[in-house]
Amino acid sequence: MKIGIMTYMFNDWNLEKTLQYVSKLGYEAIEVAAWKGSNHIDIEKILSGGATEYKKTIQKYGLTISALSNHLEGQLVLGPHDESTDIWFKGTPEEKIRYGTKRMERTAEAAAALDVPVVNGFTGCPNWSAWYIFPPTYKEIFERGFELFVERWGPILDFFAKMGIRFAHEVHPQEQAYNIETAEMTLKAINYRSEFGFNFDPSHFIWQGIDPVVFIKKFGNRIYHCHAKDAEVIRENLQLAGVTSTGDWRRTDRGFRFRVVGWGDVNWRRIITALAEVHYDYVLSYEHEDPIISREDGCEKCISFLKPLIIKSTLNKVWW
Amino acid sequence: MKIGIMTYMFNDWNLEKTLQYVSKLGYEAIEVAAWKGSNHIDIEKILSGGATEYKKTIQKYGLTISALSNHLEGQLVLGPHDESTDIWFKGTPEEKIRYGTKRMERTAEAAAALDVPVVNGFTGCPNWSAWYIFPPTYKEIFERGFELFVERWGPILDFFAKMGIRFAHEVHPQEQAYNIETAEMTLKAINYRSEFGFNFDPSHFIWQGIDPVVFIKKFGNRIYHCHAKDAEVIRENLQLAGVTSTGDWRRTDRGFRFRVVGWGDVNWRRIITALAEVHYDYVLSYEHEDPIISREDGCEKCISFLKPLIIKSTLNKVWW
Amino acid sequence: MKIGIMTYMFNDWNLEKTLQYVSKLGYEAIEVAAWKGSNHIDIEKILSGGATEYKKTIQKYGLTISALSNHLEGQLVLGPHDESTDIWFKGTPEEKIRYGTKRMERTAEAAAALDVPVVNGFTGCPNWSAWYIFPPTYKEIFERGFELFVERWGPILDFFAKMGIRFAHEVHPQEQAYNIETAEMTLKAINYRSEFGFNFDPSHFIWQGIDPVVFIKKFGNRIYHCHAKDAEVIRENLQLAGVTSTGDWRRTDRGFRFRVVGWGDVNWRRIITALAEVHYDYVLSYEHEDPIISREDGCEKCISFLKPLIIKSTLNKVWW
Amino acid sequence: MKIGIMTYMFNDWNLEKTLQYVSKLGYEAIEVAAWKGSNHIDIEKILSGGATEYKKTIQKYGLTISALSNHLEGQLVLGPHDESTDIWFKGTPEEKIRYGTKRMERTAEAAAALDVPVVNGFTGCPNWSAWYIFPPTYKEIFERGFELFVERWGPILDFFAKMGIRFAHEVHPQEQAYNIETAEMTLKAINYRSEFGFNFDPSHFIWQGIDPVVFIKKFGNRIYHCHAKDAEVIRENLQLAGVTSTGDWRRTDRGFRFRVVGWGDVNWRRIITALAEVHYDYVLSYEHEDPIISREDGCEKCISFLKPLIIKSTLNKVWW
Amino acid sequence: MKIGIMTYMFNDWNLEKTLQYVSKLGYEAIEVAAWKGSNHIDIEKILSGGATEYKKTIQKYGLTISALSNHLEGQLVLGPHDESTDIWFKGTPEEKIRYGTKRMERTAEAAAALDVPVVNGFTGCPNWSAWYIFPPTYKEIFERGFELFVERWGPILDFFAKMGIRFAHEVHPQEQAYNIETAEMTLKAINYRSEFGFNFDPSHFIWQGIDPVVFIKKFGNRIYHCHAKDAEVIRENLQLAGVTSTGDWRRTDRGFRFRVVGWGDVNWRRIITALAEVHYDYVLSYEHEDPIISREDGCEKCISFLKPLIIKSTLNKVWW
Amino acid sequence: MKIGIMTYMFNDWNLEKTLQYVSKLGYEAIEVAAWKGSNHIDIEKILSGGATEYKKTIQKYGLTISALSNHLEGQLVLGPHDESTDIWFKGTPEEKIRYGTKRMERTAEAAAALDVPVVNGFTGCPNWSAWYIFPPTYKEIFERGFELFVERWGPILDFFAKMGIRFAHEVHPQEQAYNIETAEMTLKAINYRSEFGFNFDPSHFIWQGIDPVVFIKKFGNRIYHCHAKDAEVIRENLQLAGVTSTGDWRRTDRGFRFRVVGWGDVNWRRIITALAEVHYDYVLSYEHEDPIISREDGCEKCISFLKPLIIKSTLNKVWW
Repeated sequence: MKIGIMTYMFNDWNLEKTLQYVSKLGYEAIEVAAWKGSNHIDIEKILSGGATEYKKTIQKYGLTISALSNHLEGQLVLGPHDESTDIWFKGTPEEKIRYGTKRMERTAEAAAALDVPVVNGFTGCPNWSAWYIFPPTYKEIFERGFELFVERWGPILDFFAKMGIRFAHEVHPQEQAYNIETAEMTLKAINYRSEFGFNFDPSHFIWQGIDPVVFIKKFGNRIYHCHAKDAEVIRENLQLAGVTSTGDWRRTDRGFRFRVVGWGDVNWRRIITALAEVHYDYVLSYEHEDPIISREDGCEKCISFLKPLIIKSTLNKVWW
Repeated sequence: MKIGIMTYMFNDWNLEKTLQYVSKLGYEAIEVAAWKGSNHIDIEKILSGGATEYKKTIQKYGLTISALSNHLEGQLVLGPHDESTDIWFKGTPEEKIRYGTKRMERTAEAAAALDVPVVNGFTGCPNWSAWYIFPPTYKEIFERGFELFVERWGPILDFFAKMGIRFAHEVHPQEQAYNIETAEMTLKAINYRSEFGFNFDPSHFIWQGIDPVVFIKKFGNRIYHCHAKDAEVIRENLQLAGVTSTGDWRRTDRGFRFRVVGWGDVNWRRIITALAEVHYDYVLSYEHEDPIISREDGCEKCISFLKPLIIKSTLNKVWW
Repeated sequence: MKIGIMTYMFNDWNLEKTLQYVSKLGYEAIEVAAWKGSNHIDIEKILSGGATEYKKTIQKYGLTISALSNHLEGQLVLGPHDESTDIWFKGTPEEKIRYGTKRMERTAEAAAALDVPVVNGFTGCPNWSAWYIFPPTYKEIFERGFELFVERWGPILDFFAKMGIRFAHEVHPQEQAYNIETAEMTLKAINYRSEFGFNFDPSHFIWQGIDPVVFIKKFGNRIYHCHAKDAEVIRENLQLAGVTSTGDWRRTDRGFRFRVVGWGDVNWRRIITALAEVHYDYVLSYEHEDPIISREDGCEKCISFLKPLIIKSTLNKVWW
Repeated sequence: MKIGIMTYMFNDWNLEKTLQYVSKLGYEAIEVAAWKGSNHIDIEKILSGGATEYKKTIQKYGLTISALSNHLEGQLVLGPHDESTDIWFKGTPEEKIRYGTKRMERTAEAAAALDVPVVNGFTGCPNWSAWYIFPPTYKEIFERGFELFVERWGPILDFFAKMGIRFAHEVHPQEQAYNIETAEMTLKAINYRSEFGFNFDPSHFIWQGIDPVVFIKKFGNRIYHCHAKDAEVIRENLQLAGVTSTGDWRRTDRGFRFRVVGWGDVNWRRIITALAEVHYDYVLSYEHEDPIISREDGCEKCISFLKPLIIKSTLNKVWW
Repeated sequence: MKIGIMTYMFNDWNLEKTLQYVSKLGYEAIEVAAWKGSNHIDIEKILSGGATEYKKTIQKYGLTISALSNHLEGQLVLGPHDESTDIWFKGTPEEKIRYGTKRMERTAEAAAALDVPVVNGFTGCPNWSAWYIFPPTYKEIFERGFELFVERWGPILDFFAKMGIRFAHEVHPQEQAYNIETAEMTLKAINYRSEFGFNFDPSHFIWQGIDPVVFIKKFGNRIYHCHAKDAEVIRENLQLAGVTSTGDWRRTDRGFRFRVVGWGDVNWRRIITALAEVHYDYVLSYEHEDPIISREDGCEKCISFLKPLIIKSTLNKVWW
Repeated sequence: MKIGIMTYMFNDWNLEKTLQYVSKLGYEAIEVAAWKGSNHIDIEKILSGGATEYKKTIQKYGLTISALSNHLEGQLVLGPHDESTDIWFKGTPEEKIRYGTKRMERTAEAAAALDVPVVNGFTGCPNWSAWYIFPPTYKEIFERGFELFVERWGPILDFFAKMGIRFAHEVHPQEQAYNIETAEMTLKAINYRSEFGFNFDPSHFIWQGIDPVVFIKKFGNRIYHCHAKDAEVIRENLQLAGVTSTGDWRRTDRGFRFRVVGWGDVNWRRIITALAEVHYDYVLSYEHEDPIISREDGCEKCISFLKPLIIKSTLNKVWW
């Protein structure tokens, strides 16, 4: 298992500075944000001949690319298509869908060009609030989302298949698949085709009261990528704010927040054990969204916390 | 404190049959659904001379009306204005707003005509999913909801003031105020004007990890009405489904469900103690949404559970 | 759902005195111990013409028979065949097996004669300690028990099938099926034939840390009978004695004991809800093995605790 | 086991009114405050010929006297002798000791005259804060309290012995014996003489995190009387106020308070079971200090809660 | 944030040996006991020209002084004035007060001479047991303590103001302010004047069930100094001894004890996060009172535990 | 306290390779399996002159031998004597007993020859399932085991006494002493003779709900050796499988498993503290039976987890 890092947190640094920094800390892989605005990759350049040089740059620092990530443009495929997504692309719903679709395909092409087997992202969701089925019609409306998912992502996954790339959806609020049950429903909707799997991130399960280990054991070989992100139900605020508190991530009176790995409620020994149980042996990619600790401090704390927990070898012969 | 009941669960019975049934069980007050479709009241009839007779009917069974409730049409004021609310009124967003506003005012008028001091309901919310602030613009979008709330509910509350009626919003998913913090934000937005308060219902706090007692102690005299509804985090399903499970309320693999009073996770002794601490002494109105137990069985179980817990008199002189 | 009672606790009373006593308390059904030594039935007499009169006696008190129970003689089929079972039948292992087998068949015949659809009992187990797989050969030895189970109980179940009677094994320590997993293994071993199911008793799961509700939801329509018995992990003793304390049931320093319904750790509202979820609607049969409370006091306490919790009718039409 | 009541809460009613009220509710015994100021007894009158009539009055209502209680004057024996005890007797420490001693002896005499076997009370404590051994000399100072206890209570217990009366100290804050360990130390200090035992009251253990059941099992036949008083660690206040909050009992933001039986954290089924285990079969005497619920409401709630939990008979012959 | 150490545990070593030892282990600051008997400072010498040399000695080892501490002599100001404080100063209460007052002022002067901004200490308390308001007059007596606090500490704080020094009271048993509520009351009593704040020490909150994080968030910029001391509710003893066990700190059957940082119940990640939230960035000063681990072992264990948890930089720009 | 290791996990390596490997990792002592089949010692060779060379080999790597262990052959003394123990010795029960007895004596002799003070092992148990006293005769049968224990182990312990060696029984399932109570019963049965004590291993207590710290405090100086093995109640499987799940240790759906030190539910800080409290200062010997992590990875993880937790020196003089 490698410890990797999602580099977008250093988007104000250029790629090489970032690579130098993270490799020196001991990270072994990077996950690169592929959406427009990323300063660490321009997938159009990759696709017009830049792949070889890009790969060389990565190798220079002894790193590999665990995944290209395109959460933002993927979101446009299913929505929401209200003004909230204008920051990524302004247009009619149809234009947003077309744009999101195209961009996901280009991301897959770039991944193929870079020999990166996985693209991470979000599928989007027309109206996530419909999970709570009031007004009662929200029940059908939310279920219809799974049909739209097949309709819009089916062709994208065909394209991924052609490229030999797998798509790893991150189960997350605002997505059609946001918990274990809806993750299962997306898989079923597309007949469990192998291009579609998950980017496992335990942090999103903490506030829902879901045991992330159950996710791992249930989906096993459908886990194509993993995020190392921690989350904390904030005890001193919970009785007042609840796990669904809204507002700025940096508010100190929220009931839930993301944390540096080791500083939240995720039991990493259980996570790492379960990943070993399902024979996942790819990457744990650190993502920093802690509202208290700086990104640099987080990068250091994460790797010094995780390193001793990585299982270097699993038991393959019982001695007893 | 009276034990009351929300009669809409018997909407397939006529009013008198319902009154006879609930009064015989020992309920002392009724909460009547005022929206179109209710078979227990027609507020237009009330407002064209039917009030006196209606009141007599209620009195015949030794009952009082604790509140008129209009959750459905109130929802139209702030939305959502997508197809989900077409079941209540089909029209453009503007038409829905106009209709919802008018209906809420008529409900207040009917309450006044019936000497009922409180109207319960929902304020609505343009897009509840925006509480989770991804895409990041959802932060501003959700906050804008509080401005819309003032803009649209301000005039309605003026009307309520004129009628001498108070509006009790039920803090609930899909509403602008869905937890303690957002409840506080709505109050602040309207400068704490006294026409606006809450219909306290502990069930909605259970899945959020919020302590309902903290709500009571925080809002005290802003609690204008109370629902007696219980809720259960379903232990055997939680690790898989989480507290945010979607789909039909009757699915047996959900992670959260409403229950008959006494069958869920609400600690009613703490609730009733806290209500006494803030000197609330009005009604606990039973609402039945248990997916397992029938409404009749629920009505019996609720009252036999709650009756011995009602504090008949509070300590007013210390003897020790 | 009926509340029944296992009458063997009154084996020092004659049948009629017992029937009179339990019917007066409100019990609606009886479960009768069919083994040799029972003073409440003699199955040989039943099978030589006594059935009609026996049924009349039961009916006289407004009772029904929920099951004949033969835990003791059933145990002889798989063992243990050491001296511990000499109290029930002294003989070689082969003789014990033959005797146990014969007695179980006679019990089924008697049940048929009395129109009782279920026989409760134990399957036995050659050496229960083998569940803990040290010495390592115990793994195979315990697994072989499932084969013996098929070999010995297969013919008995054939006989049950002929009689139209179902056998309900009580998942219990000292039995081949003692937890949820081994219960599933017995079912699988006999190809899920319908003559074999379970007598659900939550008390045995408490000390194992198993959630009895999971048993109910997993086996659903395989639950042919239910015991109402409670059990307590004794908090003040646990840290010293553990859940596996041995010695006399009446020792006050044990870490685990059986209790009167309502006095232990079983959450009966969850149990009754889950039984409703799987549409079990037969009997909850009270069994008294509380080391503190007398049998008569237990009988009264059980029924006054359980009565208000019985779900009289389940929701069959959603009103909301 | 009888359910009794400490009548001092009705000190503003005369004795007969009180007896009538509590007997009608179903209480079977009374515990009478014997200190100066009590309107329910005057021990000097009892000792000058009033005993027979007093007993008759009690019997008239089908009641018995479980104990005379003299917590206040007993406190004077060991102190504190600062101004805090002036409300009971003003004088020098020596005078307070002399007065307290005399009054306790008179209470024992009165008990003997009334055939009441137990006197409840407090031993007092020179300076209870010394339990926390800072300044470090407080260690010796607190330990010296046990010597003073022997010195001052020894003669009183001699007098009790002569009268055939037992003294039941209530383990309580502000007393030399305030937890299980210090209770054991008092017993040891007086060589376990049988005139000294305890008035068990679970409420005082709740805030200390002590398991009241352990007290029962440890002291068994040293428990001469029991109080039925409940206590609540107030969850919504705990993180701020702690279990040691000070100030008026009626403050709603305390972290700990006494409650009506059944409304607090005491697990009464465990208590009653443990009392049966040690063969305690005397009285559970209700004491009301709930800051929310009125005394009358408390009296009703207590008895309807406790009645079904009383073990009417314990198992004396194992049937299985 | 610096990691410092309270050097009094090495009072049997001379200052230089101590400085050498702690600096070598990585401690960055020292907190020096200023009371009579301290071998690490003599404030009278400091005030007669020794300050410069003293500062140089400290600097030689790369250390700073985070605070002068004078818990013992500060205690004399409010008391207790019984024999327990004779070990620090023998005299009448008035003499003790005068002496304590003078010594606190001298400590402030010495701090000023050494450019140390904070003096830590205790305010004292006339009779701490009065927090539990029995006898009932203890309520007023304890409240009167706040008035005495103003009367006696007011002038001392005036002196501190003149010196430009702040006093940090350690919220602790035996002090007028011993929990969050009483801390707030002391602040209020002196009109929140800025010379008075707190030396935050989480260990004292553990046994009270108070969340230390709530203290931090409530008092924020009133926290002038922090102790790194851990505490443990001793699980195996709790049910017997409770959190208020008395007697020698080294008894192994106590229910509560202090521990080396990382060996108790304090959640240091939450503490350090909260301190960052309120922008505290001064010192965490290790104090050793573990009854099991030696002071040297504790010093090593503390710093190796805390070092990786120190937040080196907080998030000041959100990258997402 | 030394950190040692049970070397049998490297039985496929020769002794020197093993010694080199473990000493390099920092282990300070080894525990050697003495049963037939061990490749790390041949006790017959030791007893025919090989002792000196063997000791030299151990010393070469700076190691000591903490114990010879003979769990397997010791089991033969009390049984079970069914086919399960044929893997260790095939014969009649009498032959097995004779063989086991002889082998234990030879192990003691070898220990003496090697200056190793302790032999670890199991006493065996005729039929462990009899702890659960159904059939009821199992009560007497299990109790009889203690007599057999005296009868068979008495002479062995006489031999140990002669050799100056102590036997440390590991409290474990399948043994006569498997929990704290039965451990006490074995001690009592042999009149607390000092040759018999315990090899403390916390892992076996975890599934029983027993607090291992209570074992330490209860048996104190009877603890002659300690295993460092962790165990995990597997949360995601517990509700289904319970703590008594059977079958292969490597099944991922078990409810209980052994783990590498630091990866399970044992609170090692509490364990190490309690060992210090009873003045145990010998060895913590790592045993690897983790079904997920390889032995080599386990060896590294164990020592890097335990090393910082070892108490290097205990407090022997209070400085405060």
